[in-house]
Amino acid sequence: MWRSQGTPEPGQDQVLIRVAAAGVNRPDLLQRAGLYPPPEGAPQSLGLEIAGQVEKVGSGVTRFEPGDRVMALVPGGGYASHAVADEGSVMMLPDALSDAEGAAVPETAFTVMTNVFEDGGLKKGERLFVHGATSGIGTMAAALANAMGAECYGTAGTAEKVDAAGRLGFAKVWNYREEDWSAGMSEAGGCDVVLDMVGGDYVPRNLAMLRPMGRHVSIAFQGGMEATVSIVDIMRRRLTLTGSTLRARSVEEKSRLRSRVESDVLPLLASGKLKPAISLTVPFSQAEEAHSSMQEGDLIGKAVLTYDEPPLS
Amino acid sequence: MWRSQGTPEPGQDQVLIRVAAAGVNRPDLLQRAGLYPPPEGAPQSLGLEIAGQVEKVGSGVTRFEPGDRVMALVPGGGYASHAVADEGSVMMLPDALSDAEGAAVPETAFTVMTNVFEDGGLKKGERLFVHGATSGIGTMAAALANAMGAECYGTAGTAEKVDAAGRLGFAKVWNYREEDWSAGMSEAGGCDVVLDMVGGDYVPRNLAMLRPMGRHVSIAFQGGMEATVSIVDIMRRRLTLTGSTLRARSVEEKSRLRSRVESDVLPLLASGKLKPAISLTVPFSQAEEAHSSMQEGDLIGKAVLTYDEPPLS
Repeated sequence: MWRSQGTPEPGQDQVLIRVAAAGVNRPDLLQRAGLYPPPEGAPQSLGLEIAGQVEKVGSGVTRFEPGDRVMALVPGGGYASHAVADEGSVMMLPDALSDAEGAAVPETAFTVMTNVFEDGGLKKGERLFVHGATSGIGTMAAALANAMGAECYGTAGTAEKVDAAGRLGFAKVWNYREEDWSAGMSEAGGCDVVLDMVGGDYVPRNLAMLRPMGRHVSIAFQGGMEATVSIVDIMRRRLTLTGSTLRARSVEEKSRLRSRVESDVLPLLASGKLKPAISLTVPFSQAEEAHSSMQEGDLIGKAVLTYDEPPLS
Repeated sequence: MWRSQGTPEPGQDQVLIRVAAAGVNRPDLLQRAGLYPPPEGAPQSLGLEIAGQVEKVGSGVTRFEPGDRVMALVPGGGYASHAVADEGSVMMLPDALSDAEGAAVPETAFTVMTNVFEDGGLKKGERLFVHGATSGIGTMAAALANAMGAECYGTAGTAEKVDAAGRLGFAKVWNYREEDWSAGMSEAGGCDVVLDMVGGDYVPRNLAMLRPMGRHVSIAFQGGMEATVSIVDIMRRRLTLTGSTLRARSVEEKSRLRSRVESDVLPLLASGKLKPAISLTVPFSQAEEAHSSMQEGDLIGKAVLTYDEPPLS
C-alpha cells in the first residue's frame, strides 16, 4: 500500500500531524519497487517528509500544541491524511512558506546539513560539487552553500537543467552527457567537497577533482554499489571518503540534526532568502505521475503531493 | 649515495645536529631502490629521523642552543655525521632515553599521532587495529593507544611476533598467514580505527571489521595501490576512509605536530612509561644489514644505526 489507513495515535514523545502536503523522494520510488524496505517499527506506507497542522500531541511533547503549522521528517507514512512524527523531527513552518514549500524542506535540509556541512565540513570560501544539480538535494545544497559563502558546482543531464542550475545559484554546471565534468572541475582549480549519489565509476572521477584535504561524501549509489579508489591518491592529497543514510538514524540523532536545521536553515527560509525549488505540485491521487516524472528525470527541484481527498479505501 | 658528504650549514630557522643515531624506516629502502624520490629541496641521502647533539643554530632559532641533546624528524640526510633539521621538527631528548632510543621515536611518534589520534580520532575506550603489530609503527601505536586508555589489536606474520606483540601491549594479534583476522576481529566485536599500510584487498577486509562510525587510515600500500570498497557499507555504517604521508608536509604542519608529540608523548618517554621497541642497533657501516633485516621481516620494533666513523669518502 502506498497510503496508510485510518488515523494513527501519537506516542508519548510524538506529534500527530494532519498532512497538507508531502515531499516525494527517490527512496519512495525504491520502496515502491520493493528495493528499500522501511526500517523496523516504521510505517509500511510511503512518505518521508510532510507539512501540515498539529492535531494531537503525546504526553511528553513540550514544543508543539494542536493548531501549530509544522513541517517534519517522518520514518514513513507521509502519503496520508495524518502522520505521526517524533517531536525531535518536527519544526515550526515559517509563515513565508506554503504547505507545499514546507513539505519540500525536511529531507533535503537534514541531508545537506549532515552530509555537506557536518561530515563534509564545507567552510566559507570553499567549493562544493554536487551531482544532480537540479535535484531537490542539489538545489538545497547550492542554496545553503551560497548562503554561507561557499561556491557550488555540479552536473546535470540536459541543457535546460544546466541553465536552470545557473539560475539556482550554481557557479558552473557541466552536462554529464556531453562534457568531462571531472577534467573541467580540475581545470577550474578543483573543489573541496563532493556530494555524490552515483557511486561506481563516478567515485574515482570525483576524487580526481578534489583539492588537497578534500572530502567525498556518498549519499546514494545509483550507478554502482562498489568503487575502486587509489590509496596513493588518498594519502598524497589527504582525502577523506565518508557517507551516510538519514532514515536509519536514531530519534536522538535526528533531533540533534533538526536543531541545527532550525538554527542554520529556518532563518533563511523565514526571511525569504532561501526558497525551496519545487518543480511539480500535484494532488496525492496523482502520486504516480510525480513518481514517473522523478524516474524520468523531468524534475527541476522537488515534487510535492498535496492532500486532496480521504485516503483510498 | 646513502650517506651525505661534508657538514651542511643550518639556515635561519634550522638546527645543525651532530648525529649520534638514526632510525631506519621503510621509505629508506624504497628510496634506495629508486621508488621514493625525496621531496624537492630535501637532501638526496637517506635518513628521516635522528638523535644527537645540537652543534650550531640558525639566527632565528629560539628553542635550542649548542650542546642540547635532541631528537628530530629530518626531510632526508639523517644517515650522516651531521644533519640539518627545521627547528619546528626538533624535540629535546629526555634523559631517560639513549641516543639510539631517541632516534627510534620521531617517525613513529609523528606518524601515530597524526594518523591514529588526529585523523583517526581514536578515543579512550575505543579499539585500534594495526597491521604489522611488531613494526616500529605498530609498537608505538599500541603503546600510545594503551597510554590513553584504548585497546590495540593487530596482525603479525610469525608465531614469535604474535607472542612479542602480546608483551608489547596488544590485546590480541592474529597471525595473518594462518588466521582470518578480519573475521576474528569482527567476532570479537569489531574495532573503531584501522591503521593500514597494506592497501589492496586488505582495505575491504579492514572496512568489514569496523564498527559503526569507524575510521580507516592508510599510511602505505605495500599490497596494492588501489582498493575496491563498498559505498553501501560506507553509508550504512557511516565509515570514514582517509590517509596521509608525513614527509611531504609543510614545515609549519610538522611544527604543529611536533608540539602535540611534545605534550602527549614526551612525558610518557621521560617517565619511562613508554619505551621505544628496538630490535636491532648496528653501526652506520652496517646499514645494509639493517635494511635487509627490515626487508626480510626479521625485526620486532625499530632498527637504529649509530654513528661510528667519519662519512665514507
